[in-house]
Amino acid sequence: MNIGIVGANGYGGVELLRLLQHHPFVKIKKIVSHSTQGNSITHIYPHLNNVYDMNLEAMNVPEIASNVDLLFFATPSGVSKEVIPQFLEQGITCIDLSGDFRLKNKGEYEKWYKQTHGTTAYLQSAVYGLSEVFREKIPEAKLISNPGCYPTAALLGLIPVLKAKMIDPNSIIIDGKSGVSGAGRNLSLGNAYAEINENVKAYKLAEHQHTPEIEQVINEISGENTNISFTTHLVPMTRGIMCTTYCQLTEKVTTEKLIDLYKSTYEQDYFIRIRPKGVWPATKEVYGSNFCDIGLVVDERTNRLIIVSVIDNLVKGAAGQAIQNMNLINGWDEKTSLQTVPIYP
Amino acid sequence: MNIGIVGANGYGGVELLRLLQHHPFVKIKKIVSHSTQGNSITHIYPHLNNVYDMNLEAMNVPEIASNVDLLFFATPSGVSKEVIPQFLEQGITCIDLSGDFRLKNKGEYEKWYKQTHGTTAYLQSAVYGLSEVFREKIPEAKLISNPGCYPTAALLGLIPVLKAKMIDPNSIIIDGKSGVSGAGRNLSLGNAYAEINENVKAYKLAEHQHTPEIEQVINEISGENTNISFTTHLVPMTRGIMCTTYCQLTEKVTTEKLIDLYKSTYEQDYFIRIRPKGVWPATKEVYGSNFCDIGLVVDERTNRLIIVSVIDNLVKGAAGQAIQNMNLINGWDEKTSLQTVPIYP
Amino acid sequence: MNIGIVGANGYGGVELLRLLQHHPFVKIKKIVSHSTQGNSITHIYPHLNNVYDMNLEAMNVPEIASNVDLLFFATPSGVSKEVIPQFLEQGITCIDLSGDFRLKNKGEYEKWYKQTHGTTAYLQSAVYGLSEVFREKIPEAKLISNPGCYPTAALLGLIPVLKAKMIDPNSIIIDGKSGVSGAGRNLSLGNAYAEINENVKAYKLAEHQHTPEIEQVINEISGENTNISFTTHLVPMTRGIMCTTYCQLTEKVTTEKLIDLYKSTYEQDYFIRIRPKGVWPATKEVYGSNFCDIGLVVDERTNRLIIVSVIDNLVKGAAGQAIQNMNLINGWDEKTSLQTVPIYP
Amino acid sequence: MNIGIVGANGYGGVELLRLLQHHPFVKIKKIVSHSTQGNSITHIYPHLNNVYDMNLEAMNVPEIASNVDLLFFATPSGVSKEVIPQFLEQGITCIDLSGDFRLKNKGEYEKWYKQTHGTTAYLQSAVYGLSEVFREKIPEAKLISNPGCYPTAALLGLIPVLKAKMIDPNSIIIDGKSGVSGAGRNLSLGNAYAEINENVKAYKLAEHQHTPEIEQVINEISGENTNISFTTHLVPMTRGIMCTTYCQLTEKVTTEKLIDLYKSTYEQDYFIRIRPKGVWPATKEVYGSNFCDIGLVVDERTNRLIIVSVIDNLVKGAAGQAIQNMNLINGWDEKTSLQTVPIYP
Repeated sequence: MNIGIVGANGYGGVELLRLLQHHPFVKIKKIVSHSTQGNSITHIYPHLNNVYDMNLEAMNVPEIASNVDLLFFATPSGVSKEVIPQFLEQGITCIDLSGDFRLKNKGEYEKWYKQTHGTTAYLQSAVYGLSEVFREKIPEAKLISNPGCYPTAALLGLIPVLKAKMIDPNSIIIDGKSGVSGAGRNLSLGNAYAEINENVKAYKLAEHQHTPEIEQVINEISGENTNISFTTHLVPMTRGIMCTTYCQLTEKVTTEKLIDLYKSTYEQDYFIRIRPKGVWPATKEVYGSNFCDIGLVVDERTNRLIIVSVIDNLVKGAAGQAIQNMNLINGWDEKTSLQTVPIYP
Repeated sequence: MNIGIVGANGYGGVELLRLLQHHPFVKIKKIVSHSTQGNSITHIYPHLNNVYDMNLEAMNVPEIASNVDLLFFATPSGVSKEVIPQFLEQGITCIDLSGDFRLKNKGEYEKWYKQTHGTTAYLQSAVYGLSEVFREKIPEAKLISNPGCYPTAALLGLIPVLKAKMIDPNSIIIDGKSGVSGAGRNLSLGNAYAEINENVKAYKLAEHQHTPEIEQVINEISGENTNISFTTHLVPMTRGIMCTTYCQLTEKVTTEKLIDLYKSTYEQDYFIRIRPKGVWPATKEVYGSNFCDIGLVVDERTNRLIIVSVIDNLVKGAAGQAIQNMNLINGWDEKTSLQTVPIYP
Repeated sequence: MNIGIVGANGYGGVELLRLLQHHPFVKIKKIVSHSTQGNSITHIYPHLNNVYDMNLEAMNVPEIASNVDLLFFATPSGVSKEVIPQFLEQGITCIDLSGDFRLKNKGEYEKWYKQTHGTTAYLQSAVYGLSEVFREKIPEAKLISNPGCYPTAALLGLIPVLKAKMIDPNSIIIDGKSGVSGAGRNLSLGNAYAEINENVKAYKLAEHQHTPEIEQVINEISGENTNISFTTHLVPMTRGIMCTTYCQLTEKVTTEKLIDLYKSTYEQDYFIRIRPKGVWPATKEVYGSNFCDIGLVVDERTNRLIIVSVIDNLVKGAAGQAIQNMNLINGWDEKTSLQTVPIYP
Repeated sequence: MNIGIVGANGYGGVELLRLLQHHPFVKIKKIVSHSTQGNSITHIYPHLNNVYDMNLEAMNVPEIASNVDLLFFATPSGVSKEVIPQFLEQGITCIDLSGDFRLKNKGEYEKWYKQTHGTTAYLQSAVYGLSEVFREKIPEAKLISNPGCYPTAALLGLIPVLKAKMIDPNSIIIDGKSGVSGAGRNLSLGNAYAEINENVKAYKLAEHQHTPEIEQVINEISGENTNISFTTHLVPMTRGIMCTTYCQLTEKVTTEKLIDLYKSTYEQDYFIRIRPKGVWPATKEVYGSNFCDIGLVVDERTNRLIIVSVIDNLVKGAAGQAIQNMNLINGWDEKTSLQTVPIYP
C-alpha cells in the first residue's frame, strides 16, 4: 500500500518514519512539510542517513491524492481539519494524529481548543482510534482520529473498572506527567533545555484540552455525563507519559482481584502489560515501544483505587498507535512493524 | 553558639554545612559520621575545599556533649532514636532531620516504619518543626522533629484552607514528585543514573511512611480523624519536590478569593510565596533556597481545589528548615543565613 | 542456529536480547547469569514482558555446550578468560564482549588491567572484531574479541588517514566522552544519579585500559610502534560515546579531500556515515543503532586534523558489533537484525 | 556604590542579581533590558520574588549615567561596543561580559566575530579581566573586558606552565565541554530540551571565536606568536565548563612537581583549587560558585601534560568574575559576596 505522511518534519512524523522502516506492506511515497518543503529529510534529521533518501514536499492535494492510498497527519493543531476533508472526498483514508477530529461536539472543540471548527461534517464519522477499546469500529473507518497521548495512557488505565462499573466516574482524578517531546519541535522558551532540566512544572491545570477527550470516552462507557479532574506536569525527560489516576471504588475489592480483572480485560492485547501486586511501571520500561504498562493498588484506608499507566508518548501516544490503527483498517496483524523491545537502559 | 552535625557525610549533612557557612552566631565544632570517621570532609566532598577544613569524627557522646550546645541529626532512619535521648539528658538541644520522633503514636511509627521504637519518652515532648505553622511552640523545644520533605510541601499547601475549614479533609489526595537526592547518598540500583535518567517511577503507593505524618498535622488542625491518599513518584532530577494536592471544597469560592486567603495566611512568612492566578510554580524556582512556592486553582467543573506547592527537598525539606528552627529556638531572625536567591537556571 | 548469552543480566546482555528479537537465523537457548540465576529475566527487566519468557541459568559448561553453537560473553572483566577456553575446546564459537582477549601481549594485559592472565593460549588466535576493518579475518574466527566502546569509535575515525599514511601516529590525541551505561549495572557511588547529573567528570587520565587496545590496531596498520594520548570523560547521559581525535597531518590537504577519502574508504560500509563539511555528528543521531557517524575538519592554522566520531556504546560499541561479527562468521548479511533507525528525539 | 545591569533579563544578568544580593557596598539602581523593558523582573523570573522588586528599564544613557557609578553589560554580542563608549565618556566604569572589547586587534575581531567594530578607540585601553592573572592592572581600569567562559577555564589551567616556560605553546590543544546555559536565553532549536538531552554535540570546530582570545593571552605570556587548537562540545547539563588541555612538555618533569608549581602559583588565590595527584575535578564541584578547580597529570609515555580545569560558566565564567573585578577596582576584598559553597549534589 502506498502511504504519505503530512507534517513529516515534526517529532510525530519522524517517529512514523522510524516505525515504518520494516513494515512489509507499506511503501512511503510522499513526505509533506509546509515549513521545510524542498529539503532532503536527512538534511533536517541526519540520523535518517542511509535509511530514507527522500525530499519533503509541499502540500499539493491532487498530486498527493493520486499517489497514496492512506495519509497520516502529524500536523499542528488546526491544520488537518482544513485539509483532511479534501482527501476524504477523493477516497483517501486519513489517520489524524492531531486533536482536530477527536471531539464529537463542535462546541466543546471550540471551547477547549480556542479556535473555530468549520468542517463539522466529519466529526461524527471520525472513529476514535484507541485501538484496544474500539477495535471493532476501526476497520471500517475512513477517518481515524488518533487519541492524544495523555488520553491513551489515562483511558487504558481506567477502562477495565469503568466497564465493570466498579468506580464512581465523577471521582476520577488524573495526574499526568509528561516528557518534553510531547510539545513538538517548536521554538519556545518553555522547551529550552536550561529551563526544563532539573525542573518539574505544572501547566494548564483545569484547562488542558485533553480533558473533554477523556470525558467523552468515559461517558460513552459509563453512560453518565461526568466531570473529571485532569492535571498535567512537565518532567525533565524527552519521552514518556505517566498517568497516576485516583478514583473512588463503589464496592470493597482487593488489589489482587482487580489485577485479575485487568489481566482478563486485556488478555488478547499484546501491547498492554499488567504488573503484579506491589510492582509499579516506569516510563523507561516502554521507551521507544508501543506498550502500555499498568500497575494498580486499592488504598484500603480510603477505598480509593490508584492506577499507574505509562506509555511512550510518541509511540503508543502517537505514531505507534496510528500504525496499529492502519494495520487494523487493512486487516493486517495489529502488531505488524510494532513488535520492538523497549530501549533499556 | 557551638553546634555539631551528626551524619555529616550524607546529603542532608553536607547541605547543613553549605547553608551554615556564613551564619553569624554559629560555630561548627563537630562533624560526626559513623561510616567515614577519620576522613577529612574535603576528601569525601572536594567541593568543600577552601571552605571547611575539618575531620569527620566517630560518635562519642561525652566528648561531643562537652563541646556543643546544639546538635543536628542528619542520620538514616532508626539512628537518632537511639542516640538523641543521651544528648537530651545532658541538656543538648537536638534537631532531628530523620523521621524518628515525628509521630506521636508509637504504634503508627512501628506500622509505617517497620521497626520498633524503644524510646517513646520523647515522642510527646518533641516539637514538630514546621516552622511557619508551629512557630509559637518551637522556641521552647529541646527536641525538634524536623518535618519530612513531602509533608513540608504538602502541608504548607493545605494549611490555609484547612484552618479556614473550607475543604473536606477526607477528600485530600496528594500526588508527590521528588528528585533523587531525597533517597540520600546510598548505594542502590534504584538510584543509579542509567535507571533514573529519562524515567519517571511511582513507588511506595499507599504505603509511604510520610502518610501518617501528614495526617497527624491535618488532624490536629481540622480536629477530625482523617485518611488521606498520598502517592510518591521519582522524577529524573537531583533536587526538588512538587506536591499536587486535590481536595473537595465544601463551599463555592473563586480562585481569586483563595489566593487572597493564602496571601494573608502567609503574610508574615518570608519563605512562602504565592503565585498569581494562572501562574504555576516550578521546582527550579526554589532550587537551593528555603522558599516554598504555591499556586492554586478552583476547578469549577468539579468544585475541587488543586494546589501546587514546591520546595527544594534538601533545603526547606531538610537542612534549611532545620536551621530556620534553630534560629527560632535562639530568638534570632528566622531568615539568618537562609536568605539566598534560588540558582536559576 | 542456537545461541546463548553469558552475563545476560547486565546492560550488554540485555542489549543483545533487544537486538536479537527478530534475528531470522538465531534461536536463544540459554541465558546465563551468576548473580541472578534462577530468576525470570522479566522479573529483573520488566520491559521484556511479552517478549522473552526465559529463566536465567547458572554457568554449567557441559549443559550449555550441548545446547548452543555460539556463545556471547557479556561478562565483567576477568570472567571470560577463565570460561571461554572450556567452550572453545568443545567447538563452541565464542564472541567475547569483555576485554579479556583483546590484547595480544599478556604483559600489556597484566599492566593495564591489573590482573594476571593464565590462558594466553588463545590470545593469539582471537580475532579482533572491529567488523569494518577486519572483515576478512572474522569469518574464520572461533573466538572473537569484540572491541571496546571507545576503541571502536576512535579507530573507525582514524582508519582512513592511518591507512593513507597522512598523519603522524605519535601525534594522536583522543578525547573520549561517554554516557554512564558504559560502566555497567553496578552498585557504585560513581554511578549514582545525584553524583552524575549536571556533572562532567574526567577519569582514568593517562591510564585507561583501552589505550593499548587502540595502539595495537594503530601499530598494526601503521607498522610503527606508537604512543598515543587517550583521555576519558563521563557525561550526564545514559548512552553514547563521542571521540574527538586530534592528529598532525604530514602533508597539506583540504577538508573536502579528506571527506572524500573517508567516503571512499567506507563506501561498502552501511553502518558508517560521513557528514558533509561543517556538519558534526551528535551521539543522539546514532542512539540505539549500530551506526558510527563521523565528521572532520582540517584546522588549517595548525595543520591538525580533527575528527569527531560517535557511536551508541551499547550497540556499535558492544552488542550490535558482536551481532555484526556473528553475522559475518556465519556468512549472513552483516546487517541482519541490525537495520534500525536511531531513536530521535 | 550605585550600579546598574544592562541585559538584566539574560542568564548573565540574572546571575549578577543572584550574586550581588548580599554585597555590602553595592546598591543596584538600574536594571536595563531592551526586549523586556517595562516588566517587573519577578514577572520574568518568579524565583526572584521577595528578593528583588524592580522594573526593567529601557536603555536611556543620560538617565542611567546620572544614577550609577558602575555598569555591568551582560548583553548579546555586538551591543556593548555601541553603547559602552557613551558611558565611558561620562565617567562611568564599565564591566563588559560580552566579547566586544576582548581582542586588541580589530581585524581579529572582525574575522572571528563576523561583524565590524567601529569603536576601536577603547580596544587598547580595555583591561582583560582574568582576575588572578591581571590583578595588577585591573584596579586602574575604566573598562574591563570580562573574559569568556572557555578562556577563563583554559587559561587558568595553562598559566603556571606557560609562565614557567615548560611547554611548547604551539602544541596546545584545548578540548572544551560546556553546559547549555552558555548559549544564553535564546530561542533556538539547538537549545531545545529534546535535542540536547541524552546528547553530546561538537560545534564550531576550528572556528570558535574564543580561539583568538585564548591565543592573545598565551602570546602575551609566552612572548611567542602561537596557534592553538580549540574545540567545543555541548553536553547535556545546564551549568559548567570543563577544559581538557593537552600540551607537549619541553622537559622531563613529574606530576608531583607540577602540582607543586600550580599550588605555589595560585597560593594567594582563594578561588583556585588544585587537586592532589590522581584526583580529577568535576564541574558539579564548582556549581554555582566562583571556584576554578584544576587537576593534572604528566602522561609519561608521550611526555604530554594533561590539564583538567572546571568552572561554573555563569559564575567564574561570567557574573562571578565580573563582580571579582568590580571588587578589585574598588579596593574591596575580591571575595566580597562571592564566598559561597558550591551546590552539591
